[in-house]
Amino acid sequence: MTNGGTLIGVGVGPGDPGLVTLKAIEALKRADVVAHFAKVGNASNARTIIAAHLNGAEELALLYPVTTEIPKADAAYREAIRGFYDEAARTIGKRLDQGCTVAVIAEGDPLFYGSYMHLHVRLSARYRTEIVAGVTGMSGCWSAIGAPIAQGDDVFTVLPGTLPEYELERRLADTDAAVVMKIGRHLAKVRRALDRAGRLDRAIYVERGTMTNASVMKLTDKLDTFAPYFAMVLVPGWESRP
Amino acid sequence: MTNGGTLIGVGVGPGDPGLVTLKAIEALKRADVVAHFAKVGNASNARTIIAAHLNGAEELALLYPVTTEIPKADAAYREAIRGFYDEAARTIGKRLDQGCTVAVIAEGDPLFYGSYMHLHVRLSARYRTEIVAGVTGMSGCWSAIGAPIAQGDDVFTVLPGTLPEYELERRLADTDAAVVMKIGRHLAKVRRALDRAGRLDRAIYVERGTMTNASVMKLTDKLDTFAPYFAMVLVPGWESRP
Repeated sequence: MTNGGTLIGVGVGPGDPGLVTLKAIEALKRADVVAHFAKVGNASNARTIIAAHLNGAEELALLYPVTTEIPKADAAYREAIRGFYDEAARTIGKRLDQGCTVAVIAEGDPLFYGSYMHLHVRLSARYRTEIVAGVTGMSGCWSAIGAPIAQGDDVFTVLPGTLPEYELERRLADTDAAVVMKIGRHLAKVRRALDRAGRLDRAIYVERGTMTNASVMKLTDKLDTFAPYFAMVLVPGWESRP
Repeated sequence: MTNGGTLIGVGVGPGDPGLVTLKAIEALKRADVVAHFAKVGNASNARTIIAAHLNGAEELALLYPVTTEIPKADAAYREAIRGFYDEAARTIGKRLDQGCTVAVIAEGDPLFYGSYMHLHVRLSARYRTEIVAGVTGMSGCWSAIGAPIAQGDDVFTVLPGTLPEYELERRLADTDAAVVMKIGRHLAKVRRALDRAGRLDRAIYVERGTMTNASVMKLTDKLDTFAPYFAMVLVPGWESRP
């Protein structure tokens, strides 16, 4: 542990600026530097969520490398991404060495499938770190549609849509409640897996969960034409409810 | 849908008053009635968390019936609990009929294993309802200890400690990351299941997650003597991390 600054992973919730916590706002007030991940040419969603609370801190945009030409399973892709996180950690490490408080804002919860985690594992052994938990994207989704997700002794499972179809089917048949994330081009596969697992009738498709332009429907009503990467499918449990 | 009042399920987060959202505070400001679940003789945890934001609204304590003498699997237990939720829903329904805005505060997230869900399913068909998503208890726990829980294509599973040992073992061996909730008197069983699943070394025991008197240790260091009902065990995934 050095005498440097403090790294804060700040969860800013699923999208609704009202779902930001008091602790996140306080962390932004303390921060000398506010860092956010974004794609080149896109505004950071996390920054949009907390824009009202920025008050003059230096901003640091961490821009993902353009990797759309490289298949994700490719070693070159993994190498590019690893290099990007190494470089981002070095950039932030410099500010921490200067004694700065650096807040890295993260959609949802910082330690639940978040990019911040890649900085945390690279920096937390050397610098003081704090985490501000956030409302997850999935909580935002089931709350926006008022769907009780899990209760009592339910088993609840989060599945990436990237899993093979037979794995999705097996796991969807073996849980009380589920959220399937990263739907994107996996929509048709996820639908087939839910159907074969006997859970399709309960499945709800949610796009842009807590945004004002949210789109929600029974998965049986959703066409296979297009789904964004961050769409999710909810399968509520609590089937024994009174 | 009547012309009555509005029922709001308000998530107040895992315990740290800083992890309350702006939207929760705004809901408390709007509320004519603030309702909370508690055991007879105990303060409501949810009320303690948001005490600073109460400003004169009528308070309604929903007191769980004393059922410690009745085994949980017993029909009499289920009947007593069902009767309690029916009665609580009637009490709140009366206020809604009077046109009141009733905020039911819930620790964590209202639709994720929360008591509020029992009111929601009884009232949401008849009254306007809103849900304010909250930071879950489990997010609070892994954030408090800075443990990255799941990343990339990890499968993440929430398991109740009440499951039979072989079910716990099977599911813990078949997931990348897990949270085992409701530890209480199931601690020794959960430990054995983790050991047989080959995951004991990664397991972290957390008591009173984001409270000031939190207790955190490797599960291998925790004695089997006593664990509270709300203790949890975290099994971080992301084993391939760089």
